[in-house]
Amino acid sequence: MARFGLNIDYKSIKMKNNRRRFLSNLGSATIMIPSLIKGYTSSELQHFSPERLNETNISIWDLDTPSLCVDLDILEANLSKLQAITTQNGIAARPHAKTHKCPQIARLQMAAGSIGICVAKISEAEVMFDHGIDKILCTTTNVTQDKIKRAMSLKKWCPDFIQATDSPANARLLSEAASAMGITADIVVDVDPGMHRTGIPAGEPALQLAQLVDQLPSLRLRGILCYDGGSQHVSGFEARKKQTLDRLAAAADTVGMMRKAGLNTEIFSGGGTGTYNIDHENEGFTDVQAGSYVFMDNQYMAIGGEHNTDVYDDFRPSLTILTTVLNDQYEGRVTTDAGAKACTINQPWPAVKGQSGMDYRSGSDEFGTLIFNDPSRTYRVGEKLELIVSHCDPVVNLYDQMYAIRNEKVEAIWKIYGRGKSS
Amino acid sequence: MARFGLNIDYKSIKMKNNRRRFLSNLGSATIMIPSLIKGYTSSELQHFSPERLNETNISIWDLDTPSLCVDLDILEANLSKLQAITTQNGIAARPHAKTHKCPQIARLQMAAGSIGICVAKISEAEVMFDHGIDKILCTTTNVTQDKIKRAMSLKKWCPDFIQATDSPANARLLSEAASAMGITADIVVDVDPGMHRTGIPAGEPALQLAQLVDQLPSLRLRGILCYDGGSQHVSGFEARKKQTLDRLAAAADTVGMMRKAGLNTEIFSGGGTGTYNIDHENEGFTDVQAGSYVFMDNQYMAIGGEHNTDVYDDFRPSLTILTTVLNDQYEGRVTTDAGAKACTINQPWPAVKGQSGMDYRSGSDEFGTLIFNDPSRTYRVGEKLELIVSHCDPVVNLYDQMYAIRNEKVEAIWKIYGRGKSS
Repeated sequence: MARFGLNIDYKSIKMKNNRRRFLSNLGSATIMIPSLIKGYTSSELQHFSPERLNETNISIWDLDTPSLCVDLDILEANLSKLQAITTQNGIAARPHAKTHKCPQIARLQMAAGSIGICVAKISEAEVMFDHGIDKILCTTTNVTQDKIKRAMSLKKWCPDFIQATDSPANARLLSEAASAMGITADIVVDVDPGMHRTGIPAGEPALQLAQLVDQLPSLRLRGILCYDGGSQHVSGFEARKKQTLDRLAAAADTVGMMRKAGLNTEIFSGGGTGTYNIDHENEGFTDVQAGSYVFMDNQYMAIGGEHNTDVYDDFRPSLTILTTVLNDQYEGRVTTDAGAKACTINQPWPAVKGQSGMDYRSGSDEFGTLIFNDPSRTYRVGEKLELIVSHCDPVVNLYDQMYAIRNEKVEAIWKIYGRGKSS
Repeated sequence: MARFGLNIDYKSIKMKNNRRRFLSNLGSATIMIPSLIKGYTSSELQHFSPERLNETNISIWDLDTPSLCVDLDILEANLSKLQAITTQNGIAARPHAKTHKCPQIARLQMAAGSIGICVAKISEAEVMFDHGIDKILCTTTNVTQDKIKRAMSLKKWCPDFIQATDSPANARLLSEAASAMGITADIVVDVDPGMHRTGIPAGEPALQLAQLVDQLPSLRLRGILCYDGGSQHVSGFEARKKQTLDRLAAAADTVGMMRKAGLNTEIFSGGGTGTYNIDHENEGFTDVQAGSYVFMDNQYMAIGGEHNTDVYDDFRPSLTILTTVLNDQYEGRVTTDAGAKACTINQPWPAVKGQSGMDYRSGSDEFGTLIFNDPSRTYRVGEKLELIVSHCDPVVNLYDQMYAIRNEKVEAIWKIYGRGKSS
């Protein structure tokens, strides 16, 4: 499994936030452990320390459902793989925390060698910083006065915070807010890869914005980002490679123009899980913003990889939803307790881990439906099963915590502090 | 608006939970109100009391985004309408709280005349009871030992708690757990309307289960439930009516068989927002479990009503997502901050409230896309707009609180304590 074995020592990664440690200790002192019941609710487990978990010896199959679980061996292999390949390709990893929203995973990413993390929203940045992560790039332009002020407040306390901007008007607002706060803000220009979703057009507009950022008081230009979200899930490695290199060519040219103009181009950030082993071919590219690689999901596995054209298996699925069968009274199917509110309705639908010949559907809000075609096994009422998730980002956003599992044992409970932080 | 005006006095509805009041007072004493910024984050507002909100005079347009908002005039009209029509039809309302997951709305439903609320999961029941709601029907069979124990623990403290069961083996487990706890549990038999999702088949199997519940020690049979989820969104009133009456015929027959056998049939619960004005035609039917009627959404509006065949307007949309335009640099479109993590990917997609000639898409995790076709207006970066939601249940499940709005003013902040309670 751990081909690029990193041997992460969880205990060596200190929690910077004393309040958490306090609560954790408080938890050990005051929470009762049910002695006879096999089945632990999230409320019962939420303040268990790793030591206490170790003593209690809880199996994944004892957990209340639906529960979100992450397999530590697989997660660690995924962390190592991204680091190994990016290093080999002469670039860095700056993983996107919008996927996991979990400070503990951000710590593991930093420990694995990442140069920082990305966040999509300022509220995610605040949560990550509150929990000890201090190298943060906010990839989304903040456009309202209050969010700009929050970003600059964060920068005041977090020297390694970098903010994206995508318009001259926005750059001026950032400069004013930074000046008012007596700081100098680190800024990257967000360049549109042609999706017309966020960012400024590549070429002259982006160059002029970079020059403006360079000239405005209280701003420090660090370079650009160009996230080609539309290419990440293109099916087939060669098609994906062609599309993203085509789309990023204008951004790479812009970096060249900036360099010629004497501007700072130390950051040319972009890419994702689908293009992590392609992006380094862009001239001047510095770091990959991959997010999903930590967990993987059915959407990514379906796109095919460089070596395995059927399944994209550069990274392996670590994230599962544990669910219980509620009803087995009808021929050829069972009903589970994990529907749309536990799985989302993203497709390809969740898949039962380790089994074949059955189709899962999470289209109903409260219930999942498992249809048996030519099943490797069947399930009876009360039995539990693990689902590989459809699309990891929005699934994680439904849960307050995930259970970190190794060899079927609960090794830790990780709070998803960024859950619901969409603002 | 308030055709069935109920004149709910919010202040008369006391909070039963002292901890909340304590936190609310604590909040007033310690939270700083930013003086110059128009823009309030959820963290800043979360402990504002209604009195403080009233003094502060916050407009919906001052809220940080994405935010979930509910229009109180419309909500109250919806509450009154359901109560008026069910009363007129000689049945009761037992609204489903899985939709709103919000104790404050459950209080309003009780104040409007509901005989109780339904919940889909035992964790929802616990949350509702913790916040003062004490007439609760759990419509889902709990199959694991720990959930059965939790349901019976709840019953011990909440005399008006009713639990569904759908198999003889489950009824026996309930009886054992109730006996062990020294209580008598109120039970309804969950009858399958033909969807084969949950419930026991109507007719003999259901009758035998009812007889078993009636005979087992520590159980008290109250009747049946039969939720025909598959008919709620059938397009066209007459088609919907035919389908659901056909599907519920076997359940109604079962109730007749139970009555003939001398069993208690005081509860025959079912139906929803799509069939609330049809269900009373089932012989012996007692109460409607409508959920979405409080908020409405694009999915329900599309099915057509008895009087308006184009739009189902028996109830009106009260729930919106407030979002901000992040980018207006590209022709014919803008990008907003409300994507799949704020809106879900349910369809029909969200619609911009009060506007026409534009299409919203929330298919991207972090961003919404608004395409202008023949727009009634356009939007510039930084401007905010309100979205009518696609499908209310899973949208509510993404937010920790909703802002209760009247005439564009924030009148209250309602915690969605059941958010994420899928277990």
